Amino acid sequence: MSTPTATSQYQQQYEEARLRGLDLDMTRGKPCADQLDLSAPLLAGVGAEYLARDGTDCRNYGCADGLADVKRLYASYLGVGIDEILMGDNSSLSLMHDVVAQALLRGVPGSDGPWAGTGARFLCPVPGYDRHFSICEHLGIEMITVPLGSEGPDLETVARLAGEDERIKGIFCVPRYSNPTGITYSDATVRGLASMETAAKDFRIIWDNAYAVHHLYPNPAPLTNILDECKRAGNSQRPLLFGSTSKITLAGAGLAMVGASEVNLADLRLFRSKQSIGPDKLSELSHLRFLPDLAAIENHMQNHADILRPKFEAVLMILDERLGPHGVATWTRPRGGYFISLETREGCASAVIDLAAQAGVRLTPAGATFPYGRDPKDTNIRLAPSYPSIEELREATGILALSILIVSEQKGFL
Amino acid sequence: MSTPTATSQYQQQYEEARLRGLDLDMTRGKPCADQLDLSAPLLAGVGAEYLARDGTDCRNYGCADGLADVKRLYASYLGVGIDEILMGDNSSLSLMHDVVAQALLRGVPGSDGPWAGTGARFLCPVPGYDRHFSICEHLGIEMITVPLGSEGPDLETVARLAGEDERIKGIFCVPRYSNPTGITYSDATVRGLASMETAAKDFRIIWDNAYAVHHLYPNPAPLTNILDECKRAGNSQRPLLFGSTSKITLAGAGLAMVGASEVNLADLRLFRSKQSIGPDKLSELSHLRFLPDLAAIENHMQNHADILRPKFEAVLMILDERLGPHGVATWTRPRGGYFISLETREGCASAVIDLAAQAGVRLTPAGATFPYGRDPKDTNIRLAPSYPSIEELREATGILALSILIVSEQKGFL
Repeated sequence: MSTPTATSQYQQQYEEARLRGLDLDMTRGKPCADQLDLSAPLLAGVGAEYLARDGTDCRNYGCADGLADVKRLYASYLGVGIDEILMGDNSSLSLMHDVVAQALLRGVPGSDGPWAGTGARFLCPVPGYDRHFSICEHLGIEMITVPLGSEGPDLETVARLAGEDERIKGIFCVPRYSNPTGITYSDATVRGLASMETAAKDFRIIWDNAYAVHHLYPNPAPLTNILDECKRAGNSQRPLLFGSTSKITLAGAGLAMVGASEVNLADLRLFRSKQSIGPDKLSELSHLRFLPDLAAIENHMQNHADILRPKFEAVLMILDERLGPHGVATWTRPRGGYFISLETREGCASAVIDLAAQAGVRLTPAGATFPYGRDPKDTNIRLAPSYPSIEELREATGILALSILIVSEQKGFL
Repeated sequence: MSTPTATSQYQQQYEEARLRGLDLDMTRGKPCADQLDLSAPLLAGVGAEYLARDGTDCRNYGCADGLADVKRLYASYLGVGIDEILMGDNSSLSLMHDVVAQALLRGVPGSDGPWAGTGARFLCPVPGYDRHFSICEHLGIEMITVPLGSEGPDLETVARLAGEDERIKGIFCVPRYSNPTGITYSDATVRGLASMETAAKDFRIIWDNAYAVHHLYPNPAPLTNILDECKRAGNSQRPLLFGSTSKITLAGAGLAMVGASEVNLADLRLFRSKQSIGPDKLSELSHLRFLPDLAAIENHMQNHADILRPKFEAVLMILDERLGPHGVATWTRPRGGYFISLETREGCASAVIDLAAQAGVRLTPAGATFPYGRDPKDTNIRLAPSYPSIEELREATGILALSILIVSEQKGFL
């Protein structure tokens, strides 16, 4: 469709960009320094006020589940009861990894025994979060992909697979502002996941609500409470809810938490009591003083949104301008979260990522959003606009667009 | 041997003490508030200086192994090379638990496969640390006890068992100021553990050097470097060295670390990269500024010793005075660490602990220093003098002594 002149124009522009020797990183959902600055008060520590309100000396051992006041706040945050939460260390990923590892070694409430040796499998909505997939791969859990649509994972497929194969022990979900497509699960999806029949009586939903309050725009779509729905459906033990302040406060030094039914919690508490003497209560106390309630968290997240929104919009504007007319890619317009997901024409994504890299623009590796790093159609590219400056994003997205145009042309799509 | 008059004297004294309604806790090796005060500067956080010397923004993701400067310092602390260490979160217990869990799920370098399902067993020197035993019990590793003597675990027994049973995959060791007896492994023991033949080719020594610098008195006995010895003996992969600042700085908010050969480290790094995005680098940076080198750590530990030494000596003085003449108990005189280990006459320990509890003195539960909580001779009592005040320790030890006298009398030992 395009003329040779147009071709050389893209390649010429690309060559000019390449020679500028850029080094731009859009690989990961890292907060930028401006976002981290929002939590500057946390850096001052607790000072001489190291006692929690209930008198706990936060410098010493104790409180294996976390401070009572912290549990209360983050129970509301997760949408669970005060007896349905346990605070972790600084990483919800660790909690997820460890919960799966424990299930393999010991089973979960309702299991006949350890999952290890049973050929345990997990459903993985795709495109999805690479670190979820890494946990499964590392621990030897076979992954079965399920398409992720605009309302969540395809419920019919999920219910069919989970209903017929008792080796399928769970599903990984990012229910709000899904990584990377940015969609939020619909009410029907949440209810369906909660109520479907599963062949495995110890099926678990790993509900990684990493972006629970990470809205870019006002009036966010509601997310139905998975624990409530599971209880209503008689499947109280099904969901394990994870949250983290890594992208609320400080990315390496936030709080992580897990919520679940009291039966599951007792099992988690047992495991944690063997693994650790308790989480860092000084970090908990600092967090509590900085963000004492849900209103404070919400207010704080609006400041994040004010930093992130123009970044997302800058990327989208360049994509619209440079690629809009050509029909060689589609992309999401998320209302929150940390990613834009882009779909090239078939067989182009890895070549695009390579080409962009040669011009100094690092993108998430091709295939990363699929189990085992294999994107069967080679179409998905995850864009992470949070870390670079707007200027850098414009430049990087321009190079990405050029790379897409060049590869699409080479493959005959343009 | 004692007269009825003496009997009623002990019981009368005990009754008087009981009526005072005490509540004294000698159960755990918790630092006291004065010790925690020594690390007050840590509570101020890093403030605006959140960049590490190498420019790393400690507020953000990254540095999965820990900050370079922190690794350098704690590599020296553990006695390993800079490429032989990985920083954990706030708990070395977690690292130990997780390393064993990973071995069960995936094996270790040199394994034919996962340890799970192979009937994996561990050697456990006794008396020992209850949380080591809990990890094994929780994860289904059978524990085989080995007597701990004044130079470490009985080497002949260890070598015989490890040499003949390939299901024996490891041993838990607290090589310096062992919990609870306070002994330090001799050079011969360390060399023997490093060089013995093991039936399992993937045998591991869990070297929990929790009290590496926790001396009560000057001129501490040296501890031979286990990694060096293992390398010399051609068993580089054998030891996994654990350390923690929980009892150097803050008990719930210190740094934990693991050291090992580069081959083991690569395996640990792989696991950690799946489990976590990295440790809390702000805590690392605070620690580094507060304790920048080994000399600072050593100096700081002398301040701890100045607080702890009189506490240990107060307990020992009461034990000497009240029990010395009667021959119904023996106890250790540790040169460091957190515990005094007391041996009653056979069959007395649990009754003594119960009796002391009735008078408001809580001691570590009977049997806790043995696998599965079973002290076969019912003789061992672990005393933790760090947390109570000297006044409280005198009172608590007095009641303990009375309880020992009364029970010994009832059992006919007095």
